[in-house]
Amino acid sequence: MNVAIIGFGVVGSGAYDTIRDGKTDLKVKKILDLAVRPGFEGIMTTDYNEILTDPSISVVAESIGGLHPAREFVLSALNSGKHVVTANKLLMATCYRELMETAANNGVVIRFTPAAGGGIPWLSSLRRTARGGTVRKIEGILNGTTNFILDKMAHENSDFSQVLAEAQALGYAEKDPSSDIDGLDVCYKVALSCNVATGLTASPEQIPSFGIRHISKSDFEWMQKEGKTCKLLGNYRLNEDGTVALFVQPAVVDSDSLFASVRKNFNLISLTGDRVGDLAFYGQGAGKDPTGFALVQDMLDLAEQTPETSYQYQEAVVDNSKAFFRYYVRTPDGAVTVTDLTSVSDMVSYAKTLPDETFIAALYE
Amino acid sequence: MNVAIIGFGVVGSGAYDTIRDGKTDLKVKKILDLAVRPGFEGIMTTDYNEILTDPSISVVAESIGGLHPAREFVLSALNSGKHVVTANKLLMATCYRELMETAANNGVVIRFTPAAGGGIPWLSSLRRTARGGTVRKIEGILNGTTNFILDKMAHENSDFSQVLAEAQALGYAEKDPSSDIDGLDVCYKVALSCNVATGLTASPEQIPSFGIRHISKSDFEWMQKEGKTCKLLGNYRLNEDGTVALFVQPAVVDSDSLFASVRKNFNLISLTGDRVGDLAFYGQGAGKDPTGFALVQDMLDLAEQTPETSYQYQEAVVDNSKAFFRYYVRTPDGAVTVTDLTSVSDMVSYAKTLPDETFIAALYE
Repeated sequence: MNVAIIGFGVVGSGAYDTIRDGKTDLKVKKILDLAVRPGFEGIMTTDYNEILTDPSISVVAESIGGLHPAREFVLSALNSGKHVVTANKLLMATCYRELMETAANNGVVIRFTPAAGGGIPWLSSLRRTARGGTVRKIEGILNGTTNFILDKMAHENSDFSQVLAEAQALGYAEKDPSSDIDGLDVCYKVALSCNVATGLTASPEQIPSFGIRHISKSDFEWMQKEGKTCKLLGNYRLNEDGTVALFVQPAVVDSDSLFASVRKNFNLISLTGDRVGDLAFYGQGAGKDPTGFALVQDMLDLAEQTPETSYQYQEAVVDNSKAFFRYYVRTPDGAVTVTDLTSVSDMVSYAKTLPDETFIAALYE
Repeated sequence: MNVAIIGFGVVGSGAYDTIRDGKTDLKVKKILDLAVRPGFEGIMTTDYNEILTDPSISVVAESIGGLHPAREFVLSALNSGKHVVTANKLLMATCYRELMETAANNGVVIRFTPAAGGGIPWLSSLRRTARGGTVRKIEGILNGTTNFILDKMAHENSDFSQVLAEAQALGYAEKDPSSDIDGLDVCYKVALSCNVATGLTASPEQIPSFGIRHISKSDFEWMQKEGKTCKLLGNYRLNEDGTVALFVQPAVVDSDSLFASVRKNFNLISLTGDRVGDLAFYGQGAGKDPTGFALVQDMLDLAEQTPETSYQYQEAVVDNSKAFFRYYVRTPDGAVTVTDLTSVSDMVSYAKTLPDETFIAALYE
């Protein structure tokens, strides 16, 4: 099967390297970028029309990143009758309905496994599970940067700001780390997981998030005394009435739990489904090679499978009033309280009344 | 897609229940068993020919268990041009070549995801990963009974015999627990994992195993002092020369590792692959509902995918002389020694010179 890669950055070149390893029948026919690189003269182009009008290319791999022009390039590919694979969580979570409907109208599909979980076959496994049974719950470490920070703080008794600086030096965290540490990155991945699990479209704005910006040494000291540690978890729950609870929050978990054992910048996502029970998936949530590999896996699925191209838009109704936790609340003066069972939606309201630098985490059983 | 279930025991009825949940387009057209049960008159039969000669049935789900007559029933199904799905590890590991060749000769496929890992989409994920890149290493908790025993011993300071009796009372362990505690059950699953990862056929007899029959409280006390615990791991490694190392052994692992966090009778299997790096898969390794669900997932894959029906027999060359560990050796007199780095094959030879009730475990980094 012939594929084209648009945007030859980290993910695109990772996918290219996997294909060049030669274990598959995939062939990279064209690579689009702003300039043709030396050594790539035969294959690189700056003219997207060469790809759109080439009937031998059946899949376009989008790895431009960002919303624009990625959205326009993906729409053109779909409208030209080409399947699309992408790792772009921002694009997928923001334009889910438009992209899925455009794909279905053209009899093609868009796959985006690496957009949540990076190298982990998470969304593909979730899709597979949801075919056979209802998925009731998802909890996941879906951001490697924050896991790196929390892991360091837990094991080395370091300060948040010191570990964040280290993560930035290693290239794990960006200069402006807000999207990671405030949980927005995880919101995108929760939205996509909800979409795949239920067919219900959720948008990131519907998902409240408590981040880890204000976590301190003293919080870890409190947790360690209780035999606990802290992880940032994205959450999905199917409510009895068909609405969904979607939220992101620091989670206080047992030190000997599966989540606690996830070290460095790894990710782990668990699901609870009818009949299959609990499943969990672990691996690298980012990085050139793992993410590129996952993008190639989506291409191979398209080559192997008879793609399902129907799509019916259904909006998710988000209701966080039925998910209850006891919350750890530490205000800037150092005072710790643990609340009674409180719904996520009530906690979101209550948090607005607390001082800005308060750290909030939910106690998980 | 119409399916037939042959053998209406634990796994067969689990699959039936998942299909009856109604989330799929699958339909159970016939169920074969020794007698027709009340309430199942329309669908159950005692005559296999009704299934074999029904052209509307495309998949036969084997859940008879054991080698005979399961083998003969599966061969008949394949020779009648029907795909087969099965959870039968004994059958698959013992008759791998014959079944795969028969399937290929008839243009159909045999899928057996629940035969290793039960409800975990392990073999399907392994197959998917191996399409795109070389799988270098597999390590897995592949037996729930022994994990239940080791978990209890680690957390409750109990005796082996006491916990084994408890596992038997709960139905987790069989009256004759040899296949679980001596590692034979894991050998089957390692053989199947090697088959799927490499295309190289290994048979369980080629796989040496140290079991947990002789583990004692004192072993856990030693490990806990070192910040370690014990898990029974199945192992596959691809050697540089294309041979494979395949072995089963108790593993001394860090108490805060992913393996250590696997509680009760759960399974967790990890792989290391080119480019994708480390992945791991967690879930229920046995049980009616999870295993039945996984069997249905294999049916759905057959319905969705264009099945690859070629098969070329290639025998694995097993060479355990290139996998090295330091070994914990505790003889019946209570004396503990830790060896220098020793190859698995050398340790197998050395073990023969030790008293029968010696407990042997490998130190994992």
